[in-house]
Amino acid sequence: MVIDPDPSSASRSQAHALHARDLTCQTLGIALTDVAPGWASVEMRVTKSMMNGHGKTHGGYLFLLADAAFAYACNTYGPVAVAQSAQVAFLRPAEVGDVLVAEAEERSRIGLHGIYDATVRRPSDDVVVAEFRGHSVILPGRRTP
Amino acid sequence: MVIDPDPSSASRSQAHALHARDLTCQTLGIALTDVAPGWASVEMRVTKSMMNGHGKTHGGYLFLLADAAFAYACNTYGPVAVAQSAQVAFLRPAEVGDVLVAEAEERSRIGLHGIYDATVRRPSDDVVVAEFRGHSVILPGRRTP
Amino acid sequence: MVIDPDPSSASRSQAHALHARDLTCQTLGIALTDVAPGWASVEMRVTKSMMNGHGKTHGGYLFLLADAAFAYACNTYGPVAVAQSAQVAFLRPAEVGDVLVAEAEERSRIGLHGIYDATVRRPSDDVVVAEFRGHSVILPGRRTP
Amino acid sequence: MVIDPDPSSASRSQAHALHARDLTCQTLGIALTDVAPGWASVEMRVTKSMMNGHGKTHGGYLFLLADAAFAYACNTYGPVAVAQSAQVAFLRPAEVGDVLVAEAEERSRIGLHGIYDATVRRPSDDVVVAEFRGHSVILPGRRTP
Repeated sequence: MVIDPDPSSASRSQAHALHARDLTCQTLGIALTDVAPGWASVEMRVTKSMMNGHGKTHGGYLFLLADAAFAYACNTYGPVAVAQSAQVAFLRPAEVGDVLVAEAEERSRIGLHGIYDATVRRPSDDVVVAEFRGHSVILPGRRTP
Repeated sequence: MVIDPDPSSASRSQAHALHARDLTCQTLGIALTDVAPGWASVEMRVTKSMMNGHGKTHGGYLFLLADAAFAYACNTYGPVAVAQSAQVAFLRPAEVGDVLVAEAEERSRIGLHGIYDATVRRPSDDVVVAEFRGHSVILPGRRTP
Repeated sequence: MVIDPDPSSASRSQAHALHARDLTCQTLGIALTDVAPGWASVEMRVTKSMMNGHGKTHGGYLFLLADAAFAYACNTYGPVAVAQSAQVAFLRPAEVGDVLVAEAEERSRIGLHGIYDATVRRPSDDVVVAEFRGHSVILPGRRTP
Repeated sequence: MVIDPDPSSASRSQAHALHARDLTCQTLGIALTDVAPGWASVEMRVTKSMMNGHGKTHGGYLFLLADAAFAYACNTYGPVAVAQSAQVAFLRPAEVGDVLVAEAEERSRIGLHGIYDATVRRPSDDVVVAEFRGHSVILPGRRTP
């Protein structure tokens, strides 16, 4: 019998497998920087094509980055989990060239349902850009390949 | 004295000006299909690069589409309005090739603050894909060029 | 065979049965003023014991009133539905003696899940006090007695 | 010059002054059990008059308890802060006689705006009953007496 020396390695494998198939993250250059059970961190550089009509990063991409961290965090237990709902608060604008990091961590888990909080930060000056909370649900009978 | 024959034309001009400068919408092929005071409709075709790791449209893009409709709807009165917070419920998955429409309409407006509801539908079979609610705030002293 | 002359009467019966057993509504004097499939209206007079430390109606009671309308609206189809999550925006304060009305209406329904929007108004001057959105889920196998 | 030996004492004074004037908390028996800058804890025993039509604690009271903790937590800095919006997820039902504790802590603060997370727990078996997030805004020029 082999004991897994790293309790996080299964979580990491599952999240990285999901990331490898995630064409959104691949296309936008969103890196999965770290993962642990119920926790994940992603990183993205803001490009010109992510600007809105006011010349700031489109809120949709700030949400998307937080949502990506959330998706990896809630898919660290084996069964496939998907987002049911989410909300976001936009606190500060982000500019072209900014590197943004989103960290998602589990807040509560009960039965098939989970709640995860994600914060989008700009590490260069350590300011919070957005705060996100997502609700996940496990799809019964499905596991990540 | 010239009476504007179409009370919506100023709203339309402002929203279309915003759309023309919106590199996110231009890059993703999001069309601004219609606009009226406090109301806007946008359309997007889902591409392969919008898939998540489960092979469905990434929730970030569903949010982004609703958020785009919301942004145009709340910018139909002259002053520049930005999103303060938003929440979304994901009701059905969307696939590659789906054409999705998001319509945003004002629910309440008081002082600088507005609340807008947006629904993301797939017109081909008229199903609701996502429901969105956004809170906007006007930035004092700024107007859309 | 008897055809129900009023398609809303079953909805009305179910909601009124729920209201009769609802000790919160009975204690606070919340009346169920009208109901139809997917829709309900309730009314409450603000009392001194509902004030917060700032001398305004406690946000908890504004939420509770909207939540009550939501509960009746989502329990008009036979199966027992409960609230899974909800969000509220507080737009204007309410004072002692104000009569507040909350109307909830269905926005989307799919499978066991429903989304309902409720608005809390003060009819005396027709201002909106709060906007609410609730997510319900049906408990399989249970029906309102 | 007198140095305050306890940096939390001003926060505590302000929150307790607010609590003393809060007729909702006084009427419902909601105790302010502890407070620190950006943090507060409250406690309430569920009574029969807080039941809904399904015989469980009305979601409005679960929200209200979390909202009360939030209100004290965001009023620990001097200026008067009020709730702008909030959302809640109901995770487990609560019964008559349950003692519930809500703890609110600051997540982000920028300018006049704050985000606070509150968890409602039943300490007797340490289960989470509800998760809450509130957005506060400071009313310029006003201070708690």
